[in-house]
Amino acid sequence: MTDLSNRRVVLSAHPVGFPKTTDFELIEDSIAEPNEGELLLKTLYLSLDPYMRGRISKARSYAVGVEVGQTMVGGTVSVVETSRNPKYKSGDIVLSYSGWQDYELSNGQGLHKLDPVHGPKPISTALGVMGMPGLTAYVGLLDIGQPQSGETVAVSSAAGAVGSVVGQIAQLHDCKTVGIAGTAEKCRYTVEEFGFQTCLNYNDDYFDSQLKEACPDGIDIYFENVGGKVFDAAYNLMNDGGRIPVCGMISRYNDTSLPDGPDTLPRLMRAILTRRLLVKGYIVTDHSDRLNNFLSDMSGWLKRGQIRYREDITEGLENAVSAFQGLLRGDNTGKTVIKVSGEP
Amino acid sequence: MTDLSNRRVVLSAHPVGFPKTTDFELIEDSIAEPNEGELLLKTLYLSLDPYMRGRISKARSYAVGVEVGQTMVGGTVSVVETSRNPKYKSGDIVLSYSGWQDYELSNGQGLHKLDPVHGPKPISTALGVMGMPGLTAYVGLLDIGQPQSGETVAVSSAAGAVGSVVGQIAQLHDCKTVGIAGTAEKCRYTVEEFGFQTCLNYNDDYFDSQLKEACPDGIDIYFENVGGKVFDAAYNLMNDGGRIPVCGMISRYNDTSLPDGPDTLPRLMRAILTRRLLVKGYIVTDHSDRLNNFLSDMSGWLKRGQIRYREDITEGLENAVSAFQGLLRGDNTGKTVIKVSGEP
Repeated sequence: MTDLSNRRVVLSAHPVGFPKTTDFELIEDSIAEPNEGELLLKTLYLSLDPYMRGRISKARSYAVGVEVGQTMVGGTVSVVETSRNPKYKSGDIVLSYSGWQDYELSNGQGLHKLDPVHGPKPISTALGVMGMPGLTAYVGLLDIGQPQSGETVAVSSAAGAVGSVVGQIAQLHDCKTVGIAGTAEKCRYTVEEFGFQTCLNYNDDYFDSQLKEACPDGIDIYFENVGGKVFDAAYNLMNDGGRIPVCGMISRYNDTSLPDGPDTLPRLMRAILTRRLLVKGYIVTDHSDRLNNFLSDMSGWLKRGQIRYREDITEGLENAVSAFQGLLRGDNTGKTVIKVSGEP
Repeated sequence: MTDLSNRRVVLSAHPVGFPKTTDFELIEDSIAEPNEGELLLKTLYLSLDPYMRGRISKARSYAVGVEVGQTMVGGTVSVVETSRNPKYKSGDIVLSYSGWQDYELSNGQGLHKLDPVHGPKPISTALGVMGMPGLTAYVGLLDIGQPQSGETVAVSSAAGAVGSVVGQIAQLHDCKTVGIAGTAEKCRYTVEEFGFQTCLNYNDDYFDSQLKEACPDGIDIYFENVGGKVFDAAYNLMNDGGRIPVCGMISRYNDTSLPDGPDTLPRLMRAILTRRLLVKGYIVTDHSDRLNNFLSDMSGWLKRGQIRYREDITEGLENAVSAFQGLLRGDNTGKTVIKVSGEP
């Protein structure tokens, strides 16, 4: 076997503001054959997620960032092409973190084999409702939010991979769910497909007063995914003892400077103090101890039709950058996935 | 027995900004004799606390506010003067919420009898280290902060009734304690009497860099009592997984508008997100279930000399307004108490 040709997307510049097409480059080189203990993975599906914007910034984030010239990171569903690792055999389907490329040479660490019979189906959902975004929703809502029957749960990015699951789990806990999304179409299917009681378009002129009207008993849990004016409107409606899991703030990821004044930080702190709010940032990789509970609960919910999901699948690694830009703009409808190669 | 003359401080106007002397009035009228089931309380000590600034605002706060013409609220140590309530007899010492006045006619509800043998001594400490401020420190640090051995705990208002106890309990949990206070003299006794490793004066020109130097391993718990630039400096030094119990923000209580820009709220939210911070507001009255644990622990600590305290006692109800203004300015050294009448 000769070395394989491998296409991969590398970072060519740390983006300033909204990531430009020229901040990335699709290059083609070759990948070596596996040595003893290694295996060659072929990428089937690549997950695109908002957290990736943080990884390509220079600013401090959760994890070590991607440097210029390095391959973009990302979760994948991959198939074992060749294995010289006794734990894996050719044809195994695994959850990997191979990044934006056709192939990866792996030492076998950090892989999770997907059960061909009992595992997620379609296998792309291992990157979505049965994967990291699903677990993110599960941990944020249940462990931080701790929903009680009858409470009001407001969810930003309600049409997205995480928000849509947050709302549906909240409904299973007898909560009233109010979605927030960026287009009328997203709002429509958030209600029709995901069962939210209502969903508001934050681009509407009267969003603030609409949110207030939609939450006559205030908000007990606000699931924060966006920041900006949506956050401002929501935290002002929080009830005493309310909880705010902070999962993301996509509206701010591309900011290069702070917004103009006044400085509203003291207003937030006053709300936190006088209403005894809990505000808690989290990152799903800290909560892998919850993975088994999550997989068990979620597979039951999916089987019984209690949780629904959408995938937004784009074909071709060469379209990953534009799909990522679309994700940051909110163009996606459901979990953003790149189909890198056909299923075996 | 004829009706007693009763002096009391009433609110004459909701303060705008820093409370003025003319926002209060000391009036004298009479108080009726107790009916069946009632008892007459004579105030010995009155507690003055920062939370009272919130009670006299028009803005939403924890609790129902004081209206113009009403007596100022506040915790007291009082003696039962006359009792027609079978549960109390003349001479009993009770913890009450009689407010800023010489006498109160009580129906017996909400009183706690202080044990003359095993109860707090001096009895004024029932308003301080053995009372609400002590419990506030205990709940905020232990239940929200959850200190671990070797962690760094930064405490604002470190010389005050709450902060000084937070720091000392943190030391008992083998934490490194960094105090923050407003004068060199306060910093001196925060270190010398309360045993903080160091204490920084936030009025110093280089406070930000001094705080950074004093916390070479970052901050794991920041106990928030002040807001403003102290909060800004502290949250920027928080470690991943850090906790911020929000107890107060005295530097902002008199603000009539938001500070000028830029709007730093997104910076705080980014820190919460990327460092997985917990920020939790609380009010001690929600945590009375912890009172017995607290009293048991604290009386042991005091007996063994592991916790020290300061009281700042002013004589005379007529001086309560100026003492309250001093408290809001940070003039006090220790728990602010008004001695309303001599101990029986």
